Parts: sequence; C-alpha cells; structure tokens
Amino acid sequence: MTASRARLASRMEGIAPFHVMRILARARAMEANGRAVVHMEVGEPPFPTPGPVVAQARRALDAGETFYTPALGLPRLRAAIADYYQERFGVRLSSDRIVVTPGSSAGLQLALAMLCDAGSELLLTDPGYPCNRHFARLYGITPVGLPVSAGNAFLPTLEQIEAAWSPATRALLLASPANPTGSVIPRERLRAYAACIERLGGVLIVDEIYQGLHHGMSPHSVLEVDDRVVVVNSFSKYFCMTGWRVGWLVLPESFIEAADRLAQNMYLAAPTLAQHAAVAALAPATRPILEARREALGKKLRWAERELASTGLEVTRSPDGGFYLYVGLAGLPVTASEFCRRLLEEEGVAVTPGVDFGVHRAERHIRLACVAEDGEMRTAFDAIGRLCATLLQGG
Amino acid sequence: MTASRARLASRMEGIAPFHVMRILARARAMEANGRAVVHMEVGEPPFPTPGPVVAQARRALDAGETFYTPALGLPRLRAAIADYYQERFGVRLSSDRIVVTPGSSAGLQLALAMLCDAGSELLLTDPGYPCNRHFARLYGITPVGLPVSAGNAFLPTLEQIEAAWSPATRALLLASPANPTGSVIPRERLRAYAACIERLGGVLIVDEIYQGLHHGMSPHSVLEVDDRVVVVNSFSKYFCMTGWRVGWLVLPESFIEAADRLAQNMYLAAPTLAQHAAVAALAPATRPILEARREALGKKLRWAERELASTGLEVTRSPDGGFYLYVGLAGLPVTASEFCRRLLEEEGVAVTPGVDFGVHRAERHIRLACVAEDGEMRTAFDAIGRLCATLLQGG
Repeated sequence: MTASRARLASRMEGIAPFHVMRILARARAMEANGRAVVHMEVGEPPFPTPGPVVAQARRALDAGETFYTPALGLPRLRAAIADYYQERFGVRLSSDRIVVTPGSSAGLQLALAMLCDAGSELLLTDPGYPCNRHFARLYGITPVGLPVSAGNAFLPTLEQIEAAWSPATRALLLASPANPTGSVIPRERLRAYAACIERLGGVLIVDEIYQGLHHGMSPHSVLEVDDRVVVVNSFSKYFCMTGWRVGWLVLPESFIEAADRLAQNMYLAAPTLAQHAAVAALAPATRPILEARREALGKKLRWAERELASTGLEVTRSPDGGFYLYVGLAGLPVTASEFCRRLLEEEGVAVTPGVDFGVHRAERHIRLACVAEDGEMRTAFDAIGRLCATLLQGG
Repeated sequence: MTASRARLASRMEGIAPFHVMRILARARAMEANGRAVVHMEVGEPPFPTPGPVVAQARRALDAGETFYTPALGLPRLRAAIADYYQERFGVRLSSDRIVVTPGSSAGLQLALAMLCDAGSELLLTDPGYPCNRHFARLYGITPVGLPVSAGNAFLPTLEQIEAAWSPATRALLLASPANPTGSVIPRERLRAYAACIERLGGVLIVDEIYQGLHHGMSPHSVLEVDDRVVVVNSFSKYFCMTGWRVGWLVLPESFIEAADRLAQNMYLAAPTLAQHAAVAALAPATRPILEARREALGKKLRWAERELASTGLEVTRSPDGGFYLYVGLAGLPVTASEFCRRLLEEEGVAVTPGVDFGVHRAERHIRLACVAEDGEMRTAFDAIGRLCATLLQGG
C-alpha cells in the first residue's frame, strides 16, 4: 500500500488512548501465549445479561423488530424509563424528557455538542472518566479539571467550582457513583451543586451510569432534587448490558427538540433489539437478579478493601458505589504506570494506572476493577503484595 | 419544571433537522388518527433482516455474547469483511484495515474527526446525504458544497474540485451509489478522483453505503482502483440490517492506530449481537436472498421511473443504484417543500423535499424512496399525478 501524504487532524494529539484498552490488548496477547491473566482492568460487570432481558431480545427477534426506531427511542422504552424513575426514586417525569442513546458515550457526546460551544469550557473532576475530556476536545471545548481528593470525598467544593468558573464556562460534569473513585454525591450536596450552577448560569450534567450500584445506602438520582439538570445514564453497568450499547439522557424539556435534531443526525437511533431488551431490564421481575449481583459486587469490593490493608497500598477512601477501588501507591518508589506494567508482566494481573483518569496525582494511583472471581481476586492480591514487597526492598 | 437559563451551543444553529424524520413524524401522527399513508420518505429497505442473519444473532444470544468487543470490532467480523472484498470485488486487504463501527454514521464521524481539523474545509456534493454537512459542523469543519447536476451524472468534475480546493481543504467526500441521486461513479472516474485528491494532498472519502444495490451493472468498490482512500460502508441497506446499527470503515494502515484510539473513546465498540449477526450477512449462503431483494428493488425503481413520465414530474437522470428517484418539479408552480406538504396532507403520500440534501436547486426537487409495496406505489403515483394536475390548473 502506498503511504498517503494525508495527515491526521491536530485534535488527535489531544485524544489520549484509553490506557485500559491497551492493557487489555497486552493481557490478551499474553493469554494467547498461554499465560493466565487476572482481569481487573476493564469496567465491565462479570455477569451475563439477565435471563429476562435475553428472553425479551429473543421475542423481539422473532417479531422481526429489526428496523429503525424513532431517533429519541422506542416510545415503550421511554415510557418504561419514566416509570422506573417514579417507582424507584419517586420522581415523576414525562417520557418526553427521555432520550434513548446508543450507549452513554453517545449520550455524553450529544449533551456536550448540544450545550457547549467550541471555545467554551467544561468543568470536570480530576480524576474522572477519561473519555469525557476527549469528547470535549472533539467539539473544540476545553476541559478544565477540578482536582479532587479523598479528604473531600473526591467531590469538588463549591469554592473550587466558583473559582474555576470563567465567562467561557458552560457546564459542570459530575458523576455519582464516580469512576474511578466510587464516590457518591449525597442528595443535599447535589442540591447545592445544582443551585450553584444555576446561579452561575450554566448547566449541571450528572453522569449516573453506575446508578443502582450503591453500597450500604439506597440509590438516588439528582432528579430527586433538581430537574434543570442533564442526566446521563446507561444500561451497561447495573443492568449488565455492556455489549448492547444502550443508554439514556434525561433533559429539561426545552432541550428536547435540539436533542432530537442532533440524534437524527449523529446516530439515527439506538440499536432496536437492545431497546426492546432494555424494557425487560427495567421490569420489577428482573430486579432480584440485579440486586443479588449488586450485593455480590459489594462483597467483592469490601473483601478487596480489607485485603489491600496488608499489601502496603492504601485505599484512599472507601467507595460508596460502583465496583472500583481507587488505590494510592503510598510510599512505593515507582510510578503507577510502571507498577501496572510490572504487575501485568511479572504477575499476570491487569489493573489500570491513574493516568487514564486525569493528571492530578495520577501517577500515584491505580484503579482496581473488583470484578474477577473470588479465587482470581485472591491470586491478584497475593501478587500485589509480592510486588509491593519487592519494590520496598528496592527490586 | 423551572425553565433553565442555559442556552444551546451556537453550533446547533447549523444543525438542520433531518426533514425526512419530521415528515415521518407527521405521517405517523396522521396514521394514529386513522389515515392511511404511503411511506416513500425513509431510506429503509422494506425487507426484514434475512433469516440466516437472525439465526446467527439467536446463536450469539444463546452463547451469552453480550459483553464488549474490542473497539476495532470482533476479529471474526473484521476477517469476514476482508474476505468479502476478496470474494466479491477481487480486492485483497488485511483485516487490520477494517474498523467495525456502530452504523456508518459513527464511521463518518470517526473519519472526519480523525482527518479534518477545526477550521478546515470538506468538499461534498450538493445534493448529498444531509447528515454529512452536520457531522462536519459538529467538529468545526466547514462543509463546501459542489453543485452537481443530471448533465454531469450528478458527479463533480475534476475542474470543480480543483477550483473549490483551498489551502484549508482536507478531504473530498463522494458517495457511490449516491443518495439521493442514485448515481454510481464508474471505476475509471474513481481512479481519476483518487489521483486528483492525492495530487492536491488531501484524502478521498467514499461512502459505499448503498454498495450491492447496483442496477444493471456489477457492484464495485473504489478499493479496486486505489487503496489510499477512506471507505465508509454499512450493513443497513444491501444487507437489510438498519436497526442493528453496524457498519465499517476501510482505512489506510497508517490511520488505524488513531482510529482505534478514537473508537475507544467515542463508542467503545459496536453492538456485540449485531457484529455476530453481520458475519452471517456476508456469508455466500445469504447472497441469494440479498440478490433477490436487490432485483425486486430494481424493478420497483424502473416501474416508478416509467410511471413518473405520465405525471408531469421528471426523472432528472435514471439512477444506477440504490432505491431512490431524484425527481425534478419541472414547470410546477410550487416549491418542493410545499409539494411534499400537500402530497402528504391531501393525498397521504410521504416523500422528501430536496432541501434535505443541500441548497443547489433543492426547492426544485423531491426524493422518492421506491420501497413501498406495489399496490401502495400505484396509489402514490396516482396521487402524484392528481396533485400535479391540480397545481398546473392553478389549484
């Protein structure tokens, strides 16, 4: 093939690889060579899609449901999502405010494209979900990181937000439960953020993708306390539907016409089968399966937290939700990238360095996705303990 | 709900609604009120997904294939796509150059985001697929329309391209078969375009989404004559998989690393079930089903062309592929928008005005998607004839 003279757009320089995907690729290559690897890198629940959801997809297939749906989503799914808010969170909302999206990635992109001009600024936490800053850059929006730490429950203070807010700032993006820190924003704090952003004349976007995976507390939504916000959600995590690529937005009514226009252009509609299947994911009959899984994930997380104490690493703050541990390297004389590299190459355990999630103390942290089987988790923590000991002995 | 003070990003002013979706919504509302409507507006083949493809999806469901795939796509599907090029077009290419995308919309966005800087220019035909200019605007790229007419087979001349090319131009986007004109670019012409764009130092992007729906000629690909181009393709049209949301790109090898990075961020991966199902779409055993459907669509198109002669409208140029007729209003004293509005309201026939596809003589053209059942097509053409007669009598 002749090399083309064509070059990449300069925005590609601002698009970092999703490091976790590189680690996954390296782990798969090792496995292809016969090496056993414990996977604690990818943010994917270890469960297959629940039976009732698969059964619903099968019925949709039998019924020939393979054509486009309306851009905003299958009316039946939009209604089911609205009902879910009522039943689970006591929030009444019109199904007109629901936009079904092909995964929450598309939802986040749609929200940012709709709300933030090129040249504007978007505030987000550092650490935070890595793709968010790249979505911003795609549209010429400058992502502005708010450093957050365990001392503040990994939440930005109102003072931080006000200090970072500039005439160019259009929105604040928060997540609850958050990736990678597992931090959940308490209701009163959500109310305060919403009021602050309203006062500043911007939009509060809340990523509730890990909603439902709350541990030791009942799940909640920012919609319980404010309805001017933009909510991003997904069927991937709590509902165990990663590969189906379906999520949703809840928008103020005044944004729906624009969202429809953008959805028609950007992706036409979310996958039809996935939309039909998702209706069953929300049905109360599926709930016991999901809750048993949530409990299992919570147990893994607590077990991992206890185990970590003996390795030399530190859980910076006990997570309130999700399935990640955001772990500090404490006094270990090594960067997070190097730690992850050695853990994978020497011990066959794949975890993610903090650099995937931002720049604030990123090389001092790693993220463990506590989704492996119990025996594998045991193997992983023994390996982590060994590597820590080696490193402390200068190895 | 309190109205938010937040406003939309100014880029939303440049994102026109996809008019066809508005017409569809109005048609559905009329149907909900008991009115019969003939649908010749939406670009969707009238066939369910072929049996072998549905069967493959069912097998994937049974096997629990509901997790994420690699961002570039299921290796098995990438290999099957590469094999398809060899078998069908005699083109040998490495499966490494294939990027599976969640629909060709995502593929087009990925290609533009990867190749065209904000502030750069993209050349495309006017008329052309409406979303393309919006994808460009999303990324701050200026779409520059090249007016094309029946006299030039709806293809831009090399002189037009050279004259429109500026230091800011990064790429030319062509489609073959084209929407809405049905124009197919002959092989030699593709070679000339590729050479011209290479000389100009840009990238040629060819939308082959309607590939396979060639009438009266064997289908071909630009990859037969040049491999420095970017090809966009889809399982939606020829393979009758619209609602599955799966397509692909073929890229020069030098772009793959960047495409992987962007795919990881933008959408993680295409829907898993759809990817498994698509493998069966490419299998030679499915071909007879697809070819019989292509033939049926070709017959509808030719029938419609003949019928149109007696209505007063003119087929500007007999289409080489696809399932659309791009029709001129000739001397009718009415805009295309008004014609389409009256045809729907008075006659219950939904078609699309030219304004969806650009500005060049857009209000003098309409697009008919010749996908309705034969009896409905008869009804539609009688209605078109009646409206034309009424208009000519000043009604």
